[in-house]
Parts: sequence; C-alpha cells; structure tokens
Amino acid sequence: MSYYKNRTLTFKNSYVSDGYTVAGPKENDGRLRGCFDLSLSSDMFGEKTFEKAERRMFEHAISSAIAKANLTIDHIDAVFGGDLLNQIVSCSFAMRNIHTGFFGLYNACATFVESLILGSGMLNNGLENVLCVSGSHFSTAERQYRYPLELGVLRSPVTQWTATGVGCTVLTSSPELKCPRITHATVGRVVDYGVMDTNNMGAAMAPAAVDTLVTFLHDTESKSTDYDLIATGDLGKLGGDIFVDLLQRQGIDIRGRHIDCGAYLYFDSQQTYQGGSGAACSALVFNSMILNDINKGKYNKVLLIGTGALMSPTTSFQGETIPAIAHLVEIDRR
Amino acid sequence: MSYYKNRTLTFKNSYVSDGYTVAGPKENDGRLRGCFDLSLSSDMFGEKTFEKAERRMFEHAISSAIAKANLTIDHIDAVFGGDLLNQIVSCSFAMRNIHTGFFGLYNACATFVESLILGSGMLNNGLENVLCVSGSHFSTAERQYRYPLELGVLRSPVTQWTATGVGCTVLTSSPELKCPRITHATVGRVVDYGVMDTNNMGAAMAPAAVDTLVTFLHDTESKSTDYDLIATGDLGKLGGDIFVDLLQRQGIDIRGRHIDCGAYLYFDSQQTYQGGSGAACSALVFNSMILNDINKGKYNKVLLIGTGALMSPTTSFQGETIPAIAHLVEIDRR
Repeated sequence: MSYYKNRTLTFKNSYVSDGYTVAGPKENDGRLRGCFDLSLSSDMFGEKTFEKAERRMFEHAISSAIAKANLTIDHIDAVFGGDLLNQIVSCSFAMRNIHTGFFGLYNACATFVESLILGSGMLNNGLENVLCVSGSHFSTAERQYRYPLELGVLRSPVTQWTATGVGCTVLTSSPELKCPRITHATVGRVVDYGVMDTNNMGAAMAPAAVDTLVTFLHDTESKSTDYDLIATGDLGKLGGDIFVDLLQRQGIDIRGRHIDCGAYLYFDSQQTYQGGSGAACSALVFNSMILNDINKGKYNKVLLIGTGALMSPTTSFQGETIPAIAHLVEIDRR
Repeated sequence: MSYYKNRTLTFKNSYVSDGYTVAGPKENDGRLRGCFDLSLSSDMFGEKTFEKAERRMFEHAISSAIAKANLTIDHIDAVFGGDLLNQIVSCSFAMRNIHTGFFGLYNACATFVESLILGSGMLNNGLENVLCVSGSHFSTAERQYRYPLELGVLRSPVTQWTATGVGCTVLTSSPELKCPRITHATVGRVVDYGVMDTNNMGAAMAPAAVDTLVTFLHDTESKSTDYDLIATGDLGKLGGDIFVDLLQRQGIDIRGRHIDCGAYLYFDSQQTYQGGSGAACSALVFNSMILNDINKGKYNKVLLIGTGALMSPTTSFQGETIPAIAHLVEIDRR
C-alpha cells in the first residue's frame, strides 16, 4: 500500500457549530429513538411521491439547521451537499428555496464526509458559515437502484437497508462559544477489490475504509488508540467485521472503539439484515448521537469515515465491479 | 435581486498550469478543428459500449494532462471531477486507475467550473497540484436523459447537442513558469424561473448565469468591459441571446465580448440546432482555445461561467420545473 502525503489535510478554523437531523419512522424505532431533532411518523412527509418527500426532508433539515445555530440564511455563505438520486435532485431541488451558493457533491454514501472536508477547506478561503448536508430515502433508493417497491423482492442476507433521513451540519470559522473542531481530513481514493455483488456493498467498501484510515494514521503519525471513537459510515455488520479484520492484519486493533453508523442505527429485530446503508447513515448518526456525546464530554477525539460504493445500475448491468471510496475527518473536542 | 457578499471568493495561489482535451469526431469537425490534444475518429474509442468509451476518455484526459504538465501521479494531491451519467460513473470509474484523492462533483454542465472553484480553494489548504476534470458523451447522455438512440426521435429546433469530450485542467499553487491565475470566483445559487421544457435548457439556465455575473460584478466592483472575453458554458444560441438580453435590461452590455462555448463549438451546417450542451462544452473550449488565447496574449482577463440544468428524467416525469445554476471564475493572464 502506498501513501500520498497530501491526501491528509490540516484545518485551522473549522468548527462544528451545530447539527440537525430529520429521520424516518423506522430509524426512530431503532437504537437512536428520541435522538433526532425531527422524527417523521410517515416517510411520505405529507408529499405525493417519495422523491418529493426526500426533497422536503432536505429543505426542512437545511432551514432548521440554520435556525438551530441562531443564524439566518444571510449568514450562510455556501451549502455543500448531495444525495443518492440520479442528478442529486433531492438536494439540488431543495436549494431552489435556499438562496445562497451551492456545491453539488456525489461520492455515494461518503458524500456527507466529503461535504465536511470541502466545507472545512473553503472556510479557509474567507467563508464564515457553511452547511454540509446529505441524506437518503429507502423508497426512492430502492426503486432507483434495485426493484419496484411493489414487486416485493426477497432480500439477500448480506443486504443492508437504505436509511431514510437527512443530516445537516453547520460549520463556522469563528465560533462565539466553544465547539468541536474538525482538525484533519484524509481524502479518499477510489479502491476496487473486484467485488461484483451489489447486495454486498460492505465488502466492496471495507478495503477503501482501511486504505483511508491507514493513510491517515501514517500521515499524522497517530495511533488508533488516540481516538475514543472510530465511526465508519455504512459498512454494515459484515462490512464492519471485514474492516476490523483487515486492520488487525496490519497490526491495528480498533475493537472496542469502533462503531459502524449503518449497523448501529437499527435493532436486529428490525430485519435490516446487515444494518443501514445510504447517504443518511453517517449524517444521521454524526449529527445526533456522536455530536451530542462529543459536546457532553463523552468523547474527546473522534474519527468519522464516510464510505461510498460508486457503481450505478448501468455499470452493474455492463458487468463492472464496484469501486469504493472512503473519506475521513478528525473531530477534536478541544 | 439580492447579493450575498461571500458568494464571491478571492484566491491567492491558484495557477492554471496546463489543460488537456480529448474530443469526439463531430466536435473536431466543428469550429475548434485541430485545437484539441486528441481527436477521436470514433466516439466508441475502441470500447464495447458508449459508457466505457466515455470513461476511457476520462482516463486518457487525466493521465495525459498530468504528463503534459510534466508531472507524475505522485505530484497530484487530488482530482475534482464529475460527469452527466447517473452516479457520475464515468469519472468515478476512471479514478480506479488514478491513485490519488477524489472529490466527486455534480452540478450538471456547471461541474467543470465548480471543480475549478473547489480545486482553487483547496490549493489554499496546503495542496500543491490538483486536477479539475469534466466531460460528457452524446450517446450516453441521449440514452440516459432522452430516448434510445435507435428510436430516431426527431429533435426540436430549440434543442442542443450534447458534446462528446473531456477537458482536464492542472491547477498548481507554485508554478515554475508564468501562467494564468484564477483570481476570483462567484459560487452559483440555484435559480428556477419555472421553465418546464427539457428541450429548452438554455432558457432555464440563462437567468442563473445573469444572477451569478451580476453578483460577481457587484461584489468585485468591476465592469463587464474590464474583461476581454465572457464565456458561458452551454446556454446555446437561444439561451445565449436570452442571457445577453437580460443583462442589457440591467444596463450591462456584453455584446462583442461574449461567446457561449456550446454555441461556438459547432458550425451551423452540423445541425446541432442551438449548438452544444453538456459538461464537455466549457471543459473542451476552455482547455483548448481559451487557454491557448490567454497564453498567447490575445486575452488578459476572462470570465468563464459554467451553466447547469439540474433536473433529472424523474423530476420531469413528476411535473417539476428545471432549476439551474451558474458558477463563475475570473482568469487573469498576469
């Protein structure tokens, strides 16, 4: 494995001012029940289609995050965001009502951490407040990536469940009060180990997460034990186990300090098999539980690793493998 | 119209080291014949599918841009890029063979200028060399966004022709030789004037381009006459006329110094109706003719405005309008 020094960045002035989450009903029946800012009783959110519901979740999360941070839209210099739908229409269409600069992003389920990296970097170019937002919806993703919902296709035991929700983080360059800092990031590269089973994306993404974490630890000369929590985005249970195993072979033991946001989100009884997936996973878990626990002093140093599988239905139909990417940010309570 | 001061950024150390273009056969039969680094005799590029051909164009453009700038992949800290296919698979899959950090972007045909803005901004975070890449392919876009190619659907007179090609820019923070600088940028916001005709994207995008240019001129206290060239991405002929008209109503006359990359790309005899569109337009024209003309001293100050229509087939089927975005960069020969 080779290392690219400049994949790891240092940020001087990126502070996590606030986080806001809106979650679907199944997500609020899971392990984070009561942790979300808004929990929906229906994943239609009063709209006529699932796609319009997903967009409304973006609109709601963005405007509520601004209000929660005691800001108005005039304070927000740019929004960095994306989702899983073709042409990232959920986030793009939500931006019709949010009159500030927009950078549309797509790194599949790694988009949330990608947005934190680019948002942090652009704060170093004179911006004062930016939003980082990402989300997904089970029913829009299922019918775009897999099968019509009405078909009732049986799910394979290695599948994950696309989480429904949107998480939005407010980053600021000059906080009034003490708040956690994003201190470093390692930019993911595209890694492809030849996995072709689109029902087993955790296996495809685990090597990318290993590559990024090993690069980060090398570049910053730090040890995994320096961190209170190492959270991956949506490797799921099986992918998470592969991630931990691959790291152990390199002499890195993260047992006891690792959670996977996707695997954590649901109870076993909710029949999501390997747990959650989707661009909502890391955005929901980070902006609720992880950020709360950092602010309460439970964690001082956290690594958040967003993981994304970059295939499309077209590439899979054309016999391609599944490339993956993982972006990492270091969050420090100090 | 309201202004958001921080939509306009100032860059201190973003230099355009080199540009590389690979273009399809129809593009090389147009006005820029002989200007491209590689002109393909077939838009299949030796591959079995149009999608694989588009990806190969990305792989070729990225590796050739690195070589043209006398660099190796070890010098490249990150790639900022995207394309028009669902899940931006052309760019993402090309990155399997380019072992450095990757930021996947999607702002439709404004993606190239988005990549220049984010690449320039991240150079201010310790990166030394980055690549900004974008492209499109007529046949992959046509069958994803419109109709099967075999159907032979008649084209409306207000349509544009998705350009086939990829353009890649090498940005550096510390050039050895004199080269043009990216001095300012204005980040686009999403603008929606209610246009619903997906065959007339120029009309949908023109107001976004006006919003961004007016914001830029206001924020930098500059005049349109300060610029030798104001190039829009892919408004096409009709959209370009609307753009010029809307600006005139605000007292801004850009006649004689405006070209639209899409409209410029083809001769009338090539029957593209309103000219070119697609993420390749601004990337092809900027990285060939415009950059050459800046380097030769024909232009000293240039504005490049990438324009993107953010709808998807799903949103159009669901009766939605077409939101648009326009990102702007200022390039200075000094």
